[in-house]
Amino acid sequence: MEAHGIIESLTLPKPVPPLRIPLNRHDFSTQIFWDSDIGKWIEAAGYALMHRRDADIEAKVDHIADLLEHGQLADGYLNFWYIEREPEKRWTNLRDNHELYCAGHMLEGALAYAQATGKRKILDVMLRYVDHIATVFGPGDHQKKGYCGHQEIELALIKLYQETKDRRHLDLAIYFINQRGAKPHYFDVEALARGEDPKNFWARSYEYNQSHAPVRQQKKVVGHAVRAMYMYAAMADIAAETGEAQLQQTCERLWRDVISTKLYVTAGLGSSAHNEGFTSDYDLPNDTAYSETCASVALIFWAQRMLHLDLDGSYADVLEQSLYNGALAGLSRDGENYFYENPLESNGNHRRWAWHPCPCCTMNVSRLVASVGGYFCSTGDKSIAIHLYGGTKFTAVVSGRKVVIHEKSNYPWSGDINLEVIPEAVQEFDLKLRIPGWAAGAKLWVNGRPVSTKGKVATGYLSIDRSWKPGDRVRLLLPMPPERIFARPEVKMDAGRVALRRGPLIYCFEQTDHPSQPVPSLRLPRNVPIKAITRDDLFDGIVVLSASGRAAKSSDWNNDLYRSKPATSVAAKLNAVPYYLWSNRDAGPMSVWLPEI
Amino acid sequence: MEAHGIIESLTLPKPVPPLRIPLNRHDFSTQIFWDSDIGKWIEAAGYALMHRRDADIEAKVDHIADLLEHGQLADGYLNFWYIEREPEKRWTNLRDNHELYCAGHMLEGALAYAQATGKRKILDVMLRYVDHIATVFGPGDHQKKGYCGHQEIELALIKLYQETKDRRHLDLAIYFINQRGAKPHYFDVEALARGEDPKNFWARSYEYNQSHAPVRQQKKVVGHAVRAMYMYAAMADIAAETGEAQLQQTCERLWRDVISTKLYVTAGLGSSAHNEGFTSDYDLPNDTAYSETCASVALIFWAQRMLHLDLDGSYADVLEQSLYNGALAGLSRDGENYFYENPLESNGNHRRWAWHPCPCCTMNVSRLVASVGGYFCSTGDKSIAIHLYGGTKFTAVVSGRKVVIHEKSNYPWSGDINLEVIPEAVQEFDLKLRIPGWAAGAKLWVNGRPVSTKGKVATGYLSIDRSWKPGDRVRLLLPMPPERIFARPEVKMDAGRVALRRGPLIYCFEQTDHPSQPVPSLRLPRNVPIKAITRDDLFDGIVVLSASGRAAKSSDWNNDLYRSKPATSVAAKLNAVPYYLWSNRDAGPMSVWLPEI
Repeated sequence: MEAHGIIESLTLPKPVPPLRIPLNRHDFSTQIFWDSDIGKWIEAAGYALMHRRDADIEAKVDHIADLLEHGQLADGYLNFWYIEREPEKRWTNLRDNHELYCAGHMLEGALAYAQATGKRKILDVMLRYVDHIATVFGPGDHQKKGYCGHQEIELALIKLYQETKDRRHLDLAIYFINQRGAKPHYFDVEALARGEDPKNFWARSYEYNQSHAPVRQQKKVVGHAVRAMYMYAAMADIAAETGEAQLQQTCERLWRDVISTKLYVTAGLGSSAHNEGFTSDYDLPNDTAYSETCASVALIFWAQRMLHLDLDGSYADVLEQSLYNGALAGLSRDGENYFYENPLESNGNHRRWAWHPCPCCTMNVSRLVASVGGYFCSTGDKSIAIHLYGGTKFTAVVSGRKVVIHEKSNYPWSGDINLEVIPEAVQEFDLKLRIPGWAAGAKLWVNGRPVSTKGKVATGYLSIDRSWKPGDRVRLLLPMPPERIFARPEVKMDAGRVALRRGPLIYCFEQTDHPSQPVPSLRLPRNVPIKAITRDDLFDGIVVLSASGRAAKSSDWNNDLYRSKPATSVAAKLNAVPYYLWSNRDAGPMSVWLPEI
Repeated sequence: MEAHGIIESLTLPKPVPPLRIPLNRHDFSTQIFWDSDIGKWIEAAGYALMHRRDADIEAKVDHIADLLEHGQLADGYLNFWYIEREPEKRWTNLRDNHELYCAGHMLEGALAYAQATGKRKILDVMLRYVDHIATVFGPGDHQKKGYCGHQEIELALIKLYQETKDRRHLDLAIYFINQRGAKPHYFDVEALARGEDPKNFWARSYEYNQSHAPVRQQKKVVGHAVRAMYMYAAMADIAAETGEAQLQQTCERLWRDVISTKLYVTAGLGSSAHNEGFTSDYDLPNDTAYSETCASVALIFWAQRMLHLDLDGSYADVLEQSLYNGALAGLSRDGENYFYENPLESNGNHRRWAWHPCPCCTMNVSRLVASVGGYFCSTGDKSIAIHLYGGTKFTAVVSGRKVVIHEKSNYPWSGDINLEVIPEAVQEFDLKLRIPGWAAGAKLWVNGRPVSTKGKVATGYLSIDRSWKPGDRVRLLLPMPPERIFARPEVKMDAGRVALRRGPLIYCFEQTDHPSQPVPSLRLPRNVPIKAITRDDLFDGIVVLSASGRAAKSSDWNNDLYRSKPATSVAAKLNAVPYYLWSNRDAGPMSVWLPEI
């Protein structure tokens, strides 16, 4: 299956935020990973421009293109931190200094911008830089045997290969992946060359950057969450390109590990701020969750690649779970503010940033939102698979012929999905519709007639294999009852607690919806009904969840912090809103999980 | 009331650990607060020597005394970090560098050693140093208006005053307390003098060291927990010495704040490793609790001083709560290993240290244990108040005449307390026996006859005001049923959870007592009985708590991390041991709080 990149119409949030970084010479490279954020901004701009060209944005990117071309060194090298600050230290600290990571992001930006506009200046600059990188790194006697401490360039090189079909680009990505964790360990060699003791690495273990073992020997998801996700995504890409079973199996093993032991219910990843990453299995604290926006975005990248290796709806389930929860929460409703960390519980002190000193997440969620159309469907030889739903119209190409699919739905608020299938002419193909893991009892109609789904659903996709004629109509009804979610007993933080889900959306309880009861006092009795209520007055129309709950009483505790009698409770109306929308009204306490009573 | 320092017999844990720091010149002052740990070790040794002289220990201390005398500068200055490393920087960074703190601890050590042995060499050295400090700091034109970033010397100076009756010593302590938070802020002045921007203080706020406001204006307990406790203890001392009502009221206000919003059920203090201290009200995470041993020890210092200001059993309750739980947990059963942090929940990775790079807690718990006799009783004009119980024999002096009190009990395992009162001759005085807050329905017998306690208990003390003759016997029975403890609703981490207490002991659930169920799976039904069972085979005889509980089942979850059906549970025998004993057998997971079911 191939990713189907562009959809013709899709209601998007504000597509790309303004570039706020004044790009004069003095502001260049105030952080070592600065170039990467410029690259990501260009990439987000590129995706936005695919939907709607914009002269102002293009003028900004074109100006950056001139600066990049002007700044590139004669040998092709291009990293503004090193060029401006420490030219003599190029390629001396791959472990910490993001040098190849920056190149990767700029390359992804260059590709997106060229694809959107046909303007190749940045891509040409980056092709020269990639040529240079390929002379520096590789198996040759005088080449460095290294790879970046922050994986990213691997993904970019594979995208480049998919554009250029130049096998050297794929090979360089494979080289970086294969070198990781090889002995002698490159980061040891490099530290010794700098006159440093490799043991003085602050993170103590190479698990931090997933170079503790050769990638095919890795069994557990460890370390910095974003690095891990980028690496696994690149590994899945390589497995798809090369057909290597061992690499695919490694990806599957790591996928099972992260999904079954380390994933927040919001699809957030990373329990600890210390390493911006993973700790031990089932360690999923809610208030101190790191759950970086970038990690949820990167999980989407990985999930999509797994889905292309193997059309299994469980990958799309996680993709959707992250898209609508952990990743989307990173962006405010107006597109102007950003979360870096996405805890599942807040005492009211956690707010979105207008900007962040480390702006990686801002550009990551922007490029995701601007390219979200790329995740909706894939086409195979004689099939179209639809992974995500929403009000869209797109054109797929099956067996060389165009098929327009026009979807009307109010997804994710409603699971009533109506498709019009418009092939150029009558054509037989398999239309595969994803049946999400949460959707029990899906119903199907074709041209108004009910069709049994029995025997037609495999690995999460409903097959409608038939001869399609222009104007055929498909109705898919995915029931969306509000559901209680429980965490397995090993997740001690969630013991005795319950979360709410409806469709792909995880809900949360905000202080602003509970004016007379503090959020930490709210309790959800196990047996009360949860009602889904459409609220047209909120956020242009959303579905909230409501229940007759309880609130623990503090008024009879005097000043006691502890006592031998449990708290009593009073009736309290509980109102939950989708997690991704939290902190868009009054900032205040919030919780995804409520204690049961 | 005066603290009664020495008791004649008391079964103590191993009194003082060996001095493990080789005191050759090269090892001097490898940390800036090194001197303080030497001082604390000398203090612990002093208290131990009051019980039993020991030539080996004294030889070690006497050797240190020679080194200190030899090392002291001509002007009296004595801090080995500065003398050895940066002599030109004396008194330039009180905010960060513990200079006066070190002096305070060495002074406390000097006093204890002199009191125990009559040997005054270290005390004489320290008196010269105090004279020097009094020339450097004070209100004079050429004096520094500063105070230490880490409070401690204030407590030491008051102890010195109580020994010397030299008012200058008390006045210097009062000066340091009164200067704290005065404008212009000394730490600003000092930073500017170093050429630094005061805003670059890593902790960002002077709340960290409680210098954000003059002490009498402080309303909330904030910042680094040990610094806070040492300061409040010194303030209570000063209030006792000067009779200043405002300072006493400030102490009472801060006491109410910490007890009602920031105290772990173990009497641990400090929710965050970041500032080694306090965060927001009711923020009491269990697994990431900092709860430094030093802070619980320091809380005992403060509680004792509050008790001497006002004989109110609620202070003694907290003193005892900390002594038997938060503080005592800091020391292993064999006296050889130490906790720095005392979380209330562990995944099994938290172990006691044989030594710690920052050994403050090791010496703090050692000096506490070696001086624990000093907390058992106080004497007033015509009264003796007994605060703590245990198998003890001590001599009090009331109205100038000796009264021996010989207590037989198996406290804290049993609340059956038997006292023999042996005055020199028949004498009238008020014997005040503490009735702990947890003890409902205490019963009293005098010379075998039941005596009603009705109307005789005030602020936590039962008065027996009578004419005592040698051999009079008092029996006090404090009922010790196992009790469930609940936290108030604002403590979100403990919502739906329950802890167990019996007498002064908080219990916990260790993995080693639950061989077939992981600790995070254990659940305590609200209505099952909790049984107290004497286990002579454990730790030379303790009382454990046992209940027929449940364990959440993982076996039917496959690899799912979340699902819409709650976990089922199976029967599980729950066994709890006193918290202070945890991690003395197999290291493993532990929890104080269990989810209710």
